[in-house]
Amino acid sequence: MAEALRLAEKGLYTATPNPRVGCVIVRDGEAVGAGWHEKTGEPHAEVLALRAAGERARGATAYVSLEPCSHHGRTPPCVDALIEAGIARVVAAMQDPNSRVAGSGFAALRAAGILVESGLMQDEARALNIGFVARMSRGRPWVRMKIAASLDGRTALANGRSRWITGPEARRDGHAWRARACAVLTGIGTVRDDDPQLNVREVETTRQPLKVVVDSRLQLPLSAKLLASGKVLVAAAVEDKPAIAALQDQGAEVVLLPDARGKVELTDLMRELARRELNEVHVEAGFKLNGALLVSGLADELLIYVAPSILGDSARGMFSLPELAHLAQKRLVQFADVQPIGGDLRILARVLN
Amino acid sequence: MAEALRLAEKGLYTATPNPRVGCVIVRDGEAVGAGWHEKTGEPHAEVLALRAAGERARGATAYVSLEPCSHHGRTPPCVDALIEAGIARVVAAMQDPNSRVAGSGFAALRAAGILVESGLMQDEARALNIGFVARMSRGRPWVRMKIAASLDGRTALANGRSRWITGPEARRDGHAWRARACAVLTGIGTVRDDDPQLNVREVETTRQPLKVVVDSRLQLPLSAKLLASGKVLVAAAVEDKPAIAALQDQGAEVVLLPDARGKVELTDLMRELARRELNEVHVEAGFKLNGALLVSGLADELLIYVAPSILGDSARGMFSLPELAHLAQKRLVQFADVQPIGGDLRILARVLN
Repeated sequence: MAEALRLAEKGLYTATPNPRVGCVIVRDGEAVGAGWHEKTGEPHAEVLALRAAGERARGATAYVSLEPCSHHGRTPPCVDALIEAGIARVVAAMQDPNSRVAGSGFAALRAAGILVESGLMQDEARALNIGFVARMSRGRPWVRMKIAASLDGRTALANGRSRWITGPEARRDGHAWRARACAVLTGIGTVRDDDPQLNVREVETTRQPLKVVVDSRLQLPLSAKLLASGKVLVAAAVEDKPAIAALQDQGAEVVLLPDARGKVELTDLMRELARRELNEVHVEAGFKLNGALLVSGLADELLIYVAPSILGDSARGMFSLPELAHLAQKRLVQFADVQPIGGDLRILARVLN
Repeated sequence: MAEALRLAEKGLYTATPNPRVGCVIVRDGEAVGAGWHEKTGEPHAEVLALRAAGERARGATAYVSLEPCSHHGRTPPCVDALIEAGIARVVAAMQDPNSRVAGSGFAALRAAGILVESGLMQDEARALNIGFVARMSRGRPWVRMKIAASLDGRTALANGRSRWITGPEARRDGHAWRARACAVLTGIGTVRDDDPQLNVREVETTRQPLKVVVDSRLQLPLSAKLLASGKVLVAAAVEDKPAIAALQDQGAEVVLLPDARGKVELTDLMRELARRELNEVHVEAGFKLNGALLVSGLADELLIYVAPSILGDSARGMFSLPELAHLAQKRLVQFADVQPIGGDLRILARVLN
């Protein structure tokens, strides 16, 4: 299963909107076939592994990092292929959270007399497809918020300058996280302060994530660098037809998702992104949008690069939040991983409330 | 030498104002005597090790974590004891930074025909006596600033509440760092907000550090908990005789160290603390005093406990500093150690500029 997961990870940058899946077929203690899912439209991991195994698949065990599909999607069901190939036993890391599968793959295999086990290395398998699981189980993508801060928690000077707080290694690492995301999301404030390109440059990838800009009043300048390449989705709250037409001329798409206060309704935006089959959303925004996402309960994970520097308390913070009167009101996270990245420190934390 | 350093560390809470020193005497590959310096007035490590070795010291090698003293201080010179005992070779981790020794111990040993080497595990030896080295070499103590903060770098709510941001394990760990310090320093703001006792409670110690309060205008309430036990030094900038007399009645000492703006001159305070033979100063203050110490170039090390929580940007920061216009003006630190402590994260960093 460890090998199946390692193979699945090869689809980290490309498999979306599908889950990352790997499969290893073992017969008499020997791996006779292996495969991983590269991208939508291409064969699933099980099919590639069965092809590689050929006749040796008969009576063998298939280790697969996700429950095999039982429905006709973009490709025929893997369950049928496993049955036809004469697989004797299927060991899956986890059930498919997709309601169109959700155990029916296991049921179909069992009905064909195949031994089925599930749950081996389940935590690792879920982590690898955390966005797919989130989208399937709750109708929202997994939202990972990347923040580069000084040791005293400051993300930009009072004048907006933030280049660069962290070092080149941390920035490169940040691009690897961008590359695995389905969308990179920012706010109009960051576009104004930094004019970022928001694409993946520092690591190799064959796919660029969708760029999403939260821009309630449609203030995105047509000269913004992020409009120069790739797909762009602008989420707005005002129906400013000339501004919309101008952005569309630049190749951008505009969606109107106003809330009662004339801002973008962020929960609706996330539902919209899930509807578009986006699994992982990578946020690179300023303290205002970061705070709004946190307050709305939409931030799942924090990816914080802490630089060995101090900017002082006139500099901008990480999250704009309403003032607290008691410490019991603090928001809780849980540290998941801490690593040195170059001279910086990378803290991965899950948001708990 | 590793064993000598391990022994030296037994004096971590008690040796001050003396350095922490350990000694192991080895003859024919066998340790025949060992000792460590417990506290001032008690025998030095070398003397205790020689006593334990007795006649077996003749022709043996003495491993000692610091250059043996050659001057008559509170006890007779260790150099004489080593020569008398017939030690053949002395291996020291480092030269004594005390200008009264500073190589003269080695010279005296060599003059007596003893082989002398120095530098084995020097980095570890210097780290163990970082405060003693600082005081001897630059006339100021080593200043370690302890800060408990949320993940977004906040040390207290806007209303001053800060109990508790970090967990019990981090607070206990903080007391161990207090225990090794010669003084625990705070500001009048922290006394007002938290009314701390500022003594060592969570770990066992036979010695309590001096409590130092930076209180420019002598506003320390006579009911302050920190006045209830232990020695207290109040650093002030105004000669308010009734206030001084009232504090003296409570057993506190008051020193006047005004700067031109009517505040305590912090560099003078540190020199005064060094004059009083204080090696390590442990700061537990708020963002104002933390910022002032940093700006004055007096903070050597940061001991930051990062809690898995978020307080938002209306909460107080770590350092009050003048606003920066360019990122090149940022202050630099270097991460020295990162450890999980309970559910919190402990970051030890050296201040570079």
